[in-house]
Amino acid sequence: MNKRTVYLDNNATTPLHPRVKERIKQNLDTYGNASSFHFLGRTARREVETARREVAAFINAVPEEITFVGSGSEANNTVLNIFSSCCNVFQGCDLKKTEILVSTIEHPCILEAANCLQKKGVSVKYINVDKTGRLDLNNLEQKLSPQTGLVSVMMANNEIGTIQDIKAIAAIAHRQGARMHTDAVQALGKIPVDVDELGVDFLSLSAHKVYGPKGVGVLYTRKGTPFCPFIRGGHQEQGKRAGTENTLGIIGLGEAVMALKDDMESDCRKYHSLRAKLKQGITEKIPDIQFNGHQEYSLPGTLNVSFRGAEGESILLYLDLEGIAASTGSACASGSLDPSHVLLAAGIGVEYAHGSIRFSIGRENTEADIDYVLEKLPPVITRIRDMSTAY
Amino acid sequence: MNKRTVYLDNNATTPLHPRVKERIKQNLDTYGNASSFHFLGRTARREVETARREVAAFINAVPEEITFVGSGSEANNTVLNIFSSCCNVFQGCDLKKTEILVSTIEHPCILEAANCLQKKGVSVKYINVDKTGRLDLNNLEQKLSPQTGLVSVMMANNEIGTIQDIKAIAAIAHRQGARMHTDAVQALGKIPVDVDELGVDFLSLSAHKVYGPKGVGVLYTRKGTPFCPFIRGGHQEQGKRAGTENTLGIIGLGEAVMALKDDMESDCRKYHSLRAKLKQGITEKIPDIQFNGHQEYSLPGTLNVSFRGAEGESILLYLDLEGIAASTGSACASGSLDPSHVLLAAGIGVEYAHGSIRFSIGRENTEADIDYVLEKLPPVITRIRDMSTAY
Repeated sequence: MNKRTVYLDNNATTPLHPRVKERIKQNLDTYGNASSFHFLGRTARREVETARREVAAFINAVPEEITFVGSGSEANNTVLNIFSSCCNVFQGCDLKKTEILVSTIEHPCILEAANCLQKKGVSVKYINVDKTGRLDLNNLEQKLSPQTGLVSVMMANNEIGTIQDIKAIAAIAHRQGARMHTDAVQALGKIPVDVDELGVDFLSLSAHKVYGPKGVGVLYTRKGTPFCPFIRGGHQEQGKRAGTENTLGIIGLGEAVMALKDDMESDCRKYHSLRAKLKQGITEKIPDIQFNGHQEYSLPGTLNVSFRGAEGESILLYLDLEGIAASTGSACASGSLDPSHVLLAAGIGVEYAHGSIRFSIGRENTEADIDYVLEKLPPVITRIRDMSTAY
Repeated sequence: MNKRTVYLDNNATTPLHPRVKERIKQNLDTYGNASSFHFLGRTARREVETARREVAAFINAVPEEITFVGSGSEANNTVLNIFSSCCNVFQGCDLKKTEILVSTIEHPCILEAANCLQKKGVSVKYINVDKTGRLDLNNLEQKLSPQTGLVSVMMANNEIGTIQDIKAIAAIAHRQGARMHTDAVQALGKIPVDVDELGVDFLSLSAHKVYGPKGVGVLYTRKGTPFCPFIRGGHQEQGKRAGTENTLGIIGLGEAVMALKDDMESDCRKYHSLRAKLKQGITEKIPDIQFNGHQEYSLPGTLNVSFRGAEGESILLYLDLEGIAASTGSACASGSLDPSHVLLAAGIGVEYAHGSIRFSIGRENTEADIDYVLEKLPPVITRIRDMSTAY
């Protein structure tokens, strides 16, 4: 098969950066257990601590605030767990505050974890968003109470790309004495992530969204913040996360972050321009469409568009036949035929929500990729609409 | 530094098998999200499912019973969580059974997780072991009750290598209606692991103990067994474990298991013979020693030996200077100056427990490695004892 392929699903996952591939190849023999005392353990430890410093510096944290975990989902579950079933107080978990506030458009790993806590008796409240996916700050103020232990709002949405004003949200949360968490998995590498500027207490990251390896995530925890380990056992990660350190994955993440430092500015300019080109082309060539999410406070490379009267799954199928990889929303929600909870929460009508496609641009994309999509997509939509009774 | 190095800490972690390194290099571009619908997702999915079949076949399970997780510690934490704070019943968690039984020599990830549950109100009972580390079956019978939901006993101990009669233990647990879990992280690749022969309901594995990558573990769950996800979110792993699949790690694990299938028999013969040589050499050359663990029901490559009047940490330090990597016990417990909880639970006196060293043999070790240790170790022990007031 020699067909052209265009990967526009970079919010689902990204290819390894060439520098990351190189570092992984170079370190296939760095096998010591980073918690072992001997020379091989020390070599692994050195590499892990170098990566920790690199990650910390990139988000303006200090290394002790960085915990390496297995995924963004684990990082998010860890934070919610602290404020629900903490049993082993690290620095004074405040168990009297038993209420959690999350937005309605969080990633499933926040919503599912919150749902689980709710069944165990934790009070969970949901903060609304507007049509563009931006958090309703008045609604946040109304729902906050002295019982609120944690506010968790994602920095940028994975499906529609809408960016939140985390600094303002954190300030409101702190005024009521609540801790602030943001899931910055989609934000990293696309907009600046600075924990001090944002004023957050917890922040989650994932390596595989920024051209690093799968199976590695990061939880930032501000110094002095209550903590309770989620995976328990060994003394790894300053006692915050048990399990032998994933040295190779952590080294890969460190390299991915170093590459971001060098490439991010020019990459983001490209994301902006390719997104604009794609948006304009779709607008010109296809009628009855709607772009979802905020069009200004948006990730530079995410374009979520709804085609009235066309099923998202059908569009994907035809695009796949043309070698174009996109998605209907979150890969984490795949297998579900329900319309996206994010679009519904933003009040997008079902007739549009069912026909939405997310294109997410990455560092390997070119103008020619967008030209190819703009050539193939319009006839696909026409064909589907011709067969549809809904159009 | 051109010095000879001898790695005898294979229970802490193992080097990547050359076949695993090769597969990783070949798959650095297999980057699709295995939960994505498109061609790149499907390619990743195929690789993940191939690995699942390989792992399942190796332990006589079916693929649907295999859940890929981030580590052996996560697998163990997941199982304990099911029987304590399950909120989302999969196939009927029996929450009336709120008691957990674990052995006193489990890995810290079981003991710490149990400890956490105890603080939340779950009843945890500890089953004793004898001097060799073998479980006291009478004690198990006494402590079992109709309230017992889970019995968790490791298949082989990481520190002293003692193998348990899991088949007998599972039968006893089942007679009382309890579910049976075994942590087989250290057993895999060293003794046969057959879930049907053992009769267990849950079983934990880790890739990096069998020449696979770090950051990948396995939880086997017998069909029809109650389950509750630990990391929540996406639909990955049949809804049993959220988080983007660690494709590269899972591929590496699959290859490691295929290599075990080919090499295990001959490797284990070598482990046996090198262990016997090391044991005999130490016995002949060094007085006032004691071998810990059962000497028959033992992992073929684990030798735990105590040197009276010599601190384990000092021995390691001197061995390290000679290029020999060993450990005092678990790397997961490193940083702690307390004597091993395993040795204390087995009733080993403190004067011996403080001076214990674990040598763990792996597939890269040779007779010459053992000769080198037998040359360097005796003068190290003599030197330390000469400086010691305890000898």
